[in-house]
This record gives sequence, structure tokens and C-alpha cells, in this order.
Amino acid sequence: SGHPKATYRIATIEGDGIGPEVTRSAMAVLAGACGAGRLDFVMVPGGVGHYQASGEVLPKDTLKACRELDATLHGAAGLPGVTYPDGTEVGNELHLQLRFKLDLYANVRPIKLLKGVRSPLRDFDAAGGRSIDYVIVRENTEGLYASRGAGVLLRGEFASDSLVVTRKGTSRVARFAFDLAEKRGGALRDGRRRMTVCDKANILRSYAFFRSICDEVHGEFPDVEIDYAYADAITVHLLKRPDFYDVIVAENMFGDIISDLGAATVGGMGISPSGEIGDAHGLFQGAHGSAPDIAGQDLASPVAAILSGVMMLRWLADRHGDAALGEDASRIERAVETVLEAGAFVPTDLGGKARCSEMTQAILGALA
Amino acid sequence: SGHPKATYRIATIEGDGIGPEVTRSAMAVLAGACGAGRLDFVMVPGGVGHYQASGEVLPKDTLKACRELDATLHGAAGLPGVTYPDGTEVGNELHLQLRFKLDLYANVRPIKLLKGVRSPLRDFDAAGGRSIDYVIVRENTEGLYASRGAGVLLRGEFASDSLVVTRKGTSRVARFAFDLAEKRGGALRDGRRRMTVCDKANILRSYAFFRSICDEVHGEFPDVEIDYAYADAITVHLLKRPDFYDVIVAENMFGDIISDLGAATVGGMGISPSGEIGDAHGLFQGAHGSAPDIAGQDLASPVAAILSGVMMLRWLADRHGDAALGEDASRIERAVETVLEAGAFVPTDLGGKARCSEMTQAILGALA
Ligand SMILES: CC(C)[C@H](C(=O)O)[C@@H](O)C(=O)O
Ligand SMILES: CC(C)[C@H](C(=O)O)[C@@H](O)C(=O)O
Repeated sequence: SGHPKATYRIATIEGDGIGPEVTRSAMAVLAGACGAGRLDFVMVPGGVGHYQASGEVLPKDTLKACRELDATLHGAAGLPGVTYPDGTEVGNELHLQLRFKLDLYANVRPIKLLKGVRSPLRDFDAAGGRSIDYVIVRENTEGLYASRGAGVLLRGEFASDSLVVTRKGTSRVARFAFDLAEKRGGALRDGRRRMTVCDKANILRSYAFFRSICDEVHGEFPDVEIDYAYADAITVHLLKRPDFYDVIVAENMFGDIISDLGAATVGGMGISPSGEIGDAHGLFQGAHGSAPDIAGQDLASPVAAILSGVMMLRWLADRHGDAALGEDASRIERAVETVLEAGAFVPTDLGGKARCSEMTQAILGALA
Repeated sequence: SGHPKATYRIATIEGDGIGPEVTRSAMAVLAGACGAGRLDFVMVPGGVGHYQASGEVLPKDTLKACRELDATLHGAAGLPGVTYPDGTEVGNELHLQLRFKLDLYANVRPIKLLKGVRSPLRDFDAAGGRSIDYVIVRENTEGLYASRGAGVLLRGEFASDSLVVTRKGTSRVARFAFDLAEKRGGALRDGRRRMTVCDKANILRSYAFFRSICDEVHGEFPDVEIDYAYADAITVHLLKRPDFYDVIVAENMFGDIISDLGAATVGGMGISPSGEIGDAHGLFQGAHGSAPDIAGQDLASPVAAILSGVMMLRWLADRHGDAALGEDASRIERAVETVLEAGAFVPTDLGGKARCSEMTQAILGALA
């Protein structure tokens, strides 16, 4: 669109488990920062609970809203033990269908150690010395996930699935990742821009192809250095020298695995945001699941949902040339860091006891 | 065979890069601990250097020795930039061919924090409090690796590989893992025996099949508890609660990734041993690569190779009912820990400057 809007309309799916609590928290903080009327949260149903009530996990109208409104904000979806008539789990169907139906090909996971958060890695600390600040871009529409629902099981003896890597799928996500490295503008301490390709090009042809397409796309981004890391070796590097990384691109399944690893090094899923982005649509939600065991108890960390909202604002700001929205995003991020740093409110999954509602109030307070 | 032998004959492949140095170190320590004549190291060629000299990466006679002798000890193989006439890298061909030709279906990676080694995880410490001691059993002959050399590339637009999971392949590795949990006899602090299945049963049919076969085999091991972790989530757990784990079984590619992650949490590849084991054969080598950049400089850590030798002795002891050999293995392990704990010799990859030869001498000294 390229022009700022007076109001952005956000398709909002609370989902299951802790989804509603963290979504409400994110809505309150986003509305607080952006001011009345700038964001219109259009609540639409979806998820396993909705499936139980209605027989539909992703209603047509919800999909329509996600397609037509400016962005999608999603809490979390999934409840264990709920199955379709054929016995398969409903599980993460909502989320997975949205990825494919909205063609959200770049799953973006910033791995950033925030001030006030203790990394499990003893040599890393946001306050001083070596910190952690890189972004994983996971291909989100093909790779091993292409085979979901299409695997073969033969006579109970043999099962097979396909890993599929296409030129189109790889070049668009590689371009996204290089572009991000360019925008980050040398976030590394030595001022360089780096895009790391995570693969197993030494073992499988599909991964060698993935790497070769990244090499091709690199031609369009002369300011960004490219390097390569095997999916096994990168797990070692992400513990020993996470500060080497700037942007990492990976096939869907590898990206799934290293995204969680990265999140664990900066405090865990409860504070890690994610954005799933395509050319036409963007969906934003915390990296965590629906955590039904603590749902409704006001114990969930709202930080991941709020920071996912920050990613949403930045994405909208960028798409619509809306600098004010980008500034609101930065103010929220600073408020979250201020609260975490003060240490009075520590979310449960960082070892504290802060309630979801208290943290939300504290962040609103820090915004003011 | 079931009976102790006077002498065990070991097919020994030094390989490339640091392979020769660390193999010689392991041979010296094993010979020192077991006494003259108990081990006969039969040196056989193989690897990329040998390919350059002879055109063969795995000579027939080497394979024959690995088949006919009692076990195989391997240094490391691989040199970058050396290609076959068709342009593909020779790389890890030796190692991969041995896995498939000797049908070494269980890739065993003990993840144990040794005294004197600093974990990068701040909450874990072998000397007191929470430590780390579990074993990853990686399926080593199928899974995504089944597709190696068989992937399809179509018109430069589309590449595909197959993930293959069989009942036979899964049940034998699951049985191996349950059996190991039984033998470890409740290594967990609460005395329980646990076998964790690492998969993505929520996404792909092959992984759901993998899990269901593990469930079936579980019926044979009522004393061992089974639990499940998705390949993404387990990376978080291995940082936050590695002390929960006892034995973990995983498909080939997932096992490849989490084995390196586990090794990183206990000090890295330079001190991590591995054993690749089938019904008829066993191959033992450090988890590290050939590190050509430091080859021949006496800078490599011999610890991984020596501890791989320890695994070999225990495997032989078990197969041949040779208790003495098992005791020799334990003496070597204690000697290694004594040297690491004393702190006078710290291998380069643990941040020290100890030479390979010095560490070897120190370990021999501690054995005496
Ligand atoms: C929810 C689930 C389907 C998902 C995945 O496997 O991609 C999750 O692990 C994630 O990373 O979003
Ligand atoms: C050497 C290489 C072929 C190998 C693999 O990918 O399996 C390595 O990473 C390993 O874990 O042994």
C-alpha cells in the first residue's frame, strides 16, 4: 500500500490455552502505545476449542479476515487429546493451515538477549561483555513440512515422507533474509552484515540445492557476506559464539529446531516473539505453545505476545511507510526492557512469579 | 563370541587431518591401560588423503579388516576441496560408507559432564549441584540419510530427498536404547530409568511411525519409563534440564543435530566420544572432525579419541564377557578425569594450551 493508514485493522485470534490471556495483554499494550483508534482489533475465532464447539478449526470467515485485514495477531493454538473423527490430533492445524493458506514463507525469529534476562549461557550477558542479537529466518512453506499429511505408510513396515526444496521457495526466503541483513545494517560488533545458510549440503542433494540458490541470490546483495554452517555444527556455534551471527536462513525443519534452541539461549519461549511473513500477509504470535496446564491462572508470560506485537507494528510501519508506528514499536520494546531490568516482575518461565496481568500493567506504566 | 580373548585385534584407521595424532594418543593410552599384548592395533589405510594417493577412499582390505577383526578404531576423516572426477566432495565418504557397509545402526553419544570441564551452561557443574549425564542413541542407517546420493534435482527448479523409517530399523535401535537404559540402571538422581523418543510425530507420518514402533518395543522393557519430546522442544530442554534425561533415541538427522548440541553442553567435540554399533561390528572415534587447520601441530585434544577407546573396551568387555577389559576402561576414564580436574593440562578447545602429546603423557602418568 505504501501510505500510512489512520487505522490498521488486525485480525485477532485468541486461540487456546494461554492464548486469550496473552492476546489481551498484547492488545492492551499495543493500544496503549499507539493511541486510541490507530489499531482496530477484529476478534475472530479459531483453534482447537473452537473446533470442539463448531467442528471447524479455521472458519472461512476467520481466513477471510486474515486475508483482508492489515495483519493477523494470534495468541496460541492447540489442546492435547482432541482428535478428528479419523483419530488424528487437531493440534496445531490452525497455525499450520494459516502458514500455507496465507503463503507466509518467512518465519522470523529474533534471538535477542534483553537487558534484565539471564541467559543460561554463562559467557553471555546483555548488560556487559558479550551479548546475543541475531535473527533466524525459517523457510515456512516447504522443506520437510511439504510432506505433512502426505506421508506413506506401507503394511506397517515402512514409512516415508519427502523433503522438497524449490527454487521459488528458496530464492524468496533467501532474498528476505539477505534483505533483512542489509536492513540491520551491520548489527555485528565488527559492523559487518552476514547471512548464514544453515543446511546439510554435505549429505543431501536438496540441501546442496538450497545452498546453491542462496549463493545465486547473494549476487543481488554485494554488501552482505555469506557463510555456511551445517545444521549439526550450528548448534555448537549457537552456544559458543552466538555473537558471530547476524541473520541465519534455514530449511523449514532445521529452522524449527534451531529457532527453539536460539530462544532457549535468550530466556525461553515465554519471551520470544515470532512473525510469519509473506508478500501479502503477516501473522504474529509468541514462539510458545498454548500451555494448557497453566491456562486461565494469570501465570503466563505476556512478553512473547507483546514483542510479537512489536514485530507486527514494525512490519506495518515498513509496508505503509508509517514512521510513527515504528516509533511506537520501539517505545514498547524499551518499556518491556525497563520492566524486565527493574526485576520487580519476573515472568514464571524466567523463574519468577509475576502474573500476566501485573506484568501488563507494569509495561503500560513504563510506557507512560 | 561370549569368551574373553587373550588378544583383541583392532582395525585402526588413522584417517586425515588430526586423525593420526589423536589415534596414536588413544593407542598409547589403551595399550598402557590394558597391558602388553591384549590389544593388537592393525593399521589399515582409508580417508581422503588415501584417496588422493590411491584413488580409493575405503580400500577393500580395509573394509575386510573392519569386518573380520574385533573392532574398528578410527581417527577422523575428511579434507576440504578434494573431489571425485564428477566434482562431488570425497569428504566424509569413508565414515559414511563404513556405517552402511558394517550396518552400524546405533550411533551412541554419551553426553557427560566430566569433572574439570566447564559447561557453557551456568547452572551445571560436575563438581556439585546439577550435573549432566545422558546418552543419545542416533539411528545411523536410515531416516533422512537413506536418501544420500539418491536425491532428485529436476530442471534446476526442484529438489527432493526421502525420509525413510522402517519397522526393522526403528525397532532394533529402540531395543538398543531401552537395553542401554536398563543397563544404566537408573542413572537419574531419582533412580528411574527413562528412554526419551525424540521426533516430530505431530508433523510427519514417518516420525509418528517411529514413535509407535518405540511404543511397541517398550512392551519388552517394563522397568524403563518412556517419554517423548519434539525435536524442536528438546533443544530447550537440553539447555534447561539436561539432568532430566537418561537415554534419548532419535532418527538419523535429528540425532545428528542433537548429538552435537549435547556435546556442546559438556565441553565440545574435542572431548566427546562416539561409538557406532551394530549387531556384528563396532566402530569408535571422537565426535570431532579432521580439523585440517590444526593438523600436525600437536594441538588437537586427544580426549575424544581416548574416551572413544574407552567405549570400545566396554563394548568388547560386554561382548566377550571380559570383566578385566571393563576395569581397564574405567581406569582410563578416571585417569582422564584426574588430569582434567588437576587443570594443569587443558586442551585447546576447552580454552587451554595443552599439547596432544603432553596430555597423553599426563593421562598415562595418571594411569600408573
Ligand atoms: C506448532 C507447530 C506446528 C510448530 C512447528 O512444528 O512448526 C511449532 O513448533 C513452531 O515452531 O511454530
Ligand atoms: C561426518 C558427517 C558425515 C557426519 C554426519 O552428518 O552424520 C557427522 O556430522 C557426524 O555426526 O558423524
